[in-house]
Amino acid sequence: MTEDDRKLIVGLDLGGTSLKAGLFDGGLHEVASCQPATPREGGPGAVIDGLVAATEAMLAEAGVQRSSLAAVGVGVPGPVRPRTRMVYTLTNLPGWRDVALGEILEERLGCGLVEVANDADAAAFGEFERLRETDPTVGDVVCLTLGTGVGCGLIIGGRPLAGAHGLGNEAGHIIVEPNGRPCKCGQHGCVEQYASATALINDVRQRLAAGEASVLVDNESLSGKAIFDAAAQGDALAASAIEFLADHLALALIAICRLVDPEAVVLGGGLSEAGELLLRPVREAMDRRWWRVSDIKPRLRAAELGNDAGKRGAAGLARRRLIKAARR
Amino acid sequence: MTEDDRKLIVGLDLGGTSLKAGLFDGGLHEVASCQPATPREGGPGAVIDGLVAATEAMLAEAGVQRSSLAAVGVGVPGPVRPRTRMVYTLTNLPGWRDVALGEILEERLGCGLVEVANDADAAAFGEFERLRETDPTVGDVVCLTLGTGVGCGLIIGGRPLAGAHGLGNEAGHIIVEPNGRPCKCGQHGCVEQYASATALINDVRQRLAAGEASVLVDNESLSGKAIFDAAAQGDALAASAIEFLADHLALALIAICRLVDPEAVVLGGGLSEAGELLLRPVREAMDRRWWRVSDIKPRLRAAELGNDAGKRGAAGLARRRLIKAARR
Repeated sequence: MTEDDRKLIVGLDLGGTSLKAGLFDGGLHEVASCQPATPREGGPGAVIDGLVAATEAMLAEAGVQRSSLAAVGVGVPGPVRPRTRMVYTLTNLPGWRDVALGEILEERLGCGLVEVANDADAAAFGEFERLRETDPTVGDVVCLTLGTGVGCGLIIGGRPLAGAHGLGNEAGHIIVEPNGRPCKCGQHGCVEQYASATALINDVRQRLAAGEASVLVDNESLSGKAIFDAAAQGDALAASAIEFLADHLALALIAICRLVDPEAVVLGGGLSEAGELLLRPVREAMDRRWWRVSDIKPRLRAAELGNDAGKRGAAGLARRRLIKAARR
Repeated sequence: MTEDDRKLIVGLDLGGTSLKAGLFDGGLHEVASCQPATPREGGPGAVIDGLVAATEAMLAEAGVQRSSLAAVGVGVPGPVRPRTRMVYTLTNLPGWRDVALGEILEERLGCGLVEVANDADAAAFGEFERLRETDPTVGDVVCLTLGTGVGCGLIIGGRPLAGAHGLGNEAGHIIVEPNGRPCKCGQHGCVEQYASATALINDVRQRLAAGEASVLVDNESLSGKAIFDAAAQGDALAASAIEFLADHLALALIAICRLVDPEAVVLGGGLSEAGELLLRPVREAMDRRWWRVSDIKPRLRAAELGNDAGKRGAAGLARRRLIKAARR
């Protein structure tokens, strides 16, 4: 066994549909991976079996022993209690309530260092480490994912913000219209109701149904991509729907800037694949609404890791704890 | 010189009008204090002379040598560059631009540990330490001061949030009405325009001028206190103006909770002297707008340290660095 073998790190991103797993060396280069379906039946027990099986499959693929495993990081789709690494509940997976996932995995994997994080926090940490490759001074980063909803991860001083009860990092539920659209969370006017892919598609659909002209009128499986493509080709309805989204997103981003003043805002999720077609209107909306106090704005950029952000970030969080433990 | 003498800490709260200064022992009990006027002429040089003179006056009052001074903390009314302890600019004091206040004071006072912080951060840290006296587990606290404007201090994981450029902690400029009242910062709809003492008084004045009935109609020097007193006596206009304030404040507090999930929200500034008359409507507005995801809310309470929060907090921040330095 070489020195490097003893530094292998597993990153696991538990989703409602699939489990994205990667085995990484100490430099976070991926040496093995797999992506089994998430067991929907059998509750937490079956899911934990799946996490263990994925880890063992990757170790076998890489031809290394369990003893080579230095640390494991897991991102889960729900809030995690700070310090205890206890999973409160997972809305998209049945039966999860107060599961001591960190302790259980430590025992099952015979690995003394298991980090458990919210999946959005893990993904944000992945994007944060990617940003640091080009700018090592970056410390404070906000990552918003624009997909079915609006997810959020907040890195403050180089680590995910814990919050008092593990209930922060929910920028999707910042209220940007005081008496606005109802949100499934029970509030009204959450930014998620204006700036998610779901909201964008609904807005375009409603305007098409109202008879507005657009190249999208015959598009049956309307997607975020189709809307951005139409805007790029000069479609007025698509462009105006994107501006509406950008303006509401800017309101939430300004709230974030006023509070935590990040160096960078990373936009991820399906809509971020539009790149500048999304970033430009968001930047313009922020400029229009920005204060006179200072011209300093966070850098705004699209996520780079895509679907790998979660597992990479989970591995990165585990590595971070490993480094801290070694320093003690 | 006793052991305790060597642990004296100075806390300085530099305001536009006066300089609040306290000399504290290691347990942060005040052993001397003074409050000279802030020199308005002579620029940073005169102000720094004033800070040094206040420190020396307190040492003389306590009958101790300069060598007894272990640390100094200063709160200043403007943004402070993280790490370098450089003061960007002070809008209410002329001539301040990129002043290396930390280094200058270290040299002038012959004290190796000078901490410089934004005054709202210092005050928030003071209130945070007060909270910890009754609950040592508290780590994340937001402190909003409702006065001329809406000030903000954010304590995350036991320390003031730095932000990337020293431009965070400005919750007063969270936008709560997308196309709302113009703010002097250049934005529209900032919570400061709805939830400051200034805004409350203006709202009541305008409604009185429009002919609404109220016991306040003959009140010439309308104050926040008068409005809360009127509401307590059943005045409908006063009560409705306070509800309007509370509802807008709740929108900003919800944004703060969704992002950073604090254990406690402390309301300070002139309006907080109304105690429950302010807290109850704010709590009710938060309840009305709160999400269904979790009933966990931050504790909401009025500030306890009043005008002493700034100097106490500055001394507390200096003590914190002293303890960290001793551990190295």
